[in-house]
Amino acid sequence: MVKLSVSEVKTIRSLSQKKYRDALGLFVVEGEKLLEEALDAGFCPEKIYRREEISEEQMRRISSQDSPSPVLAVLRKAEQTDFVLSDSGLFLGLDSISDPGNLGTILRICDWFGIDGVFASANTVDQYNPKVVQASMGAIFRHTLYYCNLEELCMKFRSKGLPVYGTQLDGKNIYKSSLGACGLILMGNESRGLDPKLRELCTEHLLIPSFAGGAHAESLNVAIATALTIAEFKRQNNIL
Amino acid sequence: MVKLSVSEVKTIRSLSQKKYRDALGLFVVEGEKLLEEALDAGFCPEKIYRREEISEEQMRRISSQDSPSPVLAVLRKAEQTDFVLSDSGLFLGLDSISDPGNLGTILRICDWFGIDGVFASANTVDQYNPKVVQASMGAIFRHTLYYCNLEELCMKFRSKGLPVYGTQLDGKNIYKSSLGACGLILMGNESRGLDPKLRELCTEHLLIPSFAGGAHAESLNVAIATALTIAEFKRQNNIL
Repeated sequence: MVKLSVSEVKTIRSLSQKKYRDALGLFVVEGEKLLEEALDAGFCPEKIYRREEISEEQMRRISSQDSPSPVLAVLRKAEQTDFVLSDSGLFLGLDSISDPGNLGTILRICDWFGIDGVFASANTVDQYNPKVVQASMGAIFRHTLYYCNLEELCMKFRSKGLPVYGTQLDGKNIYKSSLGACGLILMGNESRGLDPKLRELCTEHLLIPSFAGGAHAESLNVAIATALTIAEFKRQNNIL
Repeated sequence: MVKLSVSEVKTIRSLSQKKYRDALGLFVVEGEKLLEEALDAGFCPEKIYRREEISEEQMRRISSQDSPSPVLAVLRKAEQTDFVLSDSGLFLGLDSISDPGNLGTILRICDWFGIDGVFASANTVDQYNPKVVQASMGAIFRHTLYYCNLEELCMKFRSKGLPVYGTQLDGKNIYKSSLGACGLILMGNESRGLDPKLRELCTEHLLIPSFAGGAHAESLNVAIATALTIAEFKRQNNIL
């Protein structure tokens, strides 16, 4: 049995906070399957801790889960590369998504539907947050999330003549709109929706209709709305 | 300031467990908005606790949330009425859904899309579980969940000549299938999918295709899959 030093335990635990992940360039992954996907995707392990090598009590101390997995790894974060916008592809822009479970689920949806790139405002929850990593079910390793200024991003799409789609309450029924195969789809914050400045920069405004006519249900969860929106783009463009 | 007795606190806390909710016929709702929706839907409050009336420390003791809401109410559960199957309508059957967040989100989706009734296997998480109530955002108060034997339910639909749709990996592309306006849609457990016995009882097998061709993404979250499935039924039947 290997015994972890106090400072090693402290360092691993500190990685639950963004500032330490940023300072050290590291993040944590728990679970055999997730770790395997990370390694498959080319992530470099700094250190791997397995239950057969360290005590259960120590595993519990370094784990952020209620019931720790048999393996926990500290991995090096991917370098954020510059994104070069091409003239085609369907992209997603996330404005101020604050719930890590939502962000992880959204990345999983993008993985499923083959979205070409995902952008997020700087105040969106960190992609290396442990809850995002877990909820993404490995999608995080295959999709780099580009944190950027979304207003500037919208301008880049517009300057190339590409549409910027906003989803909100006063838009046009998405099922009765003609959707292109390329462009940027913006999704807004869980409670506030899209920032008014971003709304103004959209070239098309879409709405997911409610059969109940909005009489009761007030909103869809942002991950659900993202899934419905992307599925309709893919369906209309016949690439499903 | 009212001071709650030890036994009162204990009773409220016990309602986080199904056996006490069943025995007492009560459940807990936290938050002003949720409580308002419960009262609007005709639920009877046994007792309402407000932060201005009891101490914050007591509020923390009776709350199941990390940061307690300013109001917590103990409500009487709705009586489970018998369900009489008509010849029309679109229904959802949930097989062994175990995550309360998923169940709450699914009820919210049913509310949004106007599903006519929701059924669940007896081993599906309890609709009055506090996490289900919170995640449903009030949908729980407007949609009774009928716990029943899903195999018998399938037989009832079939005997009326109504289709039973299963969603699984070997089905037919949902976007290339012709979907009816009526019938029963079955969704399976988070990790095991639909029970084999239920699969056999389906009259149609549907699949939500992945653009990535299943190369990476292995599955969609069950709430996401439910949303995509129901939306496609509603879209094709032009009632959105």
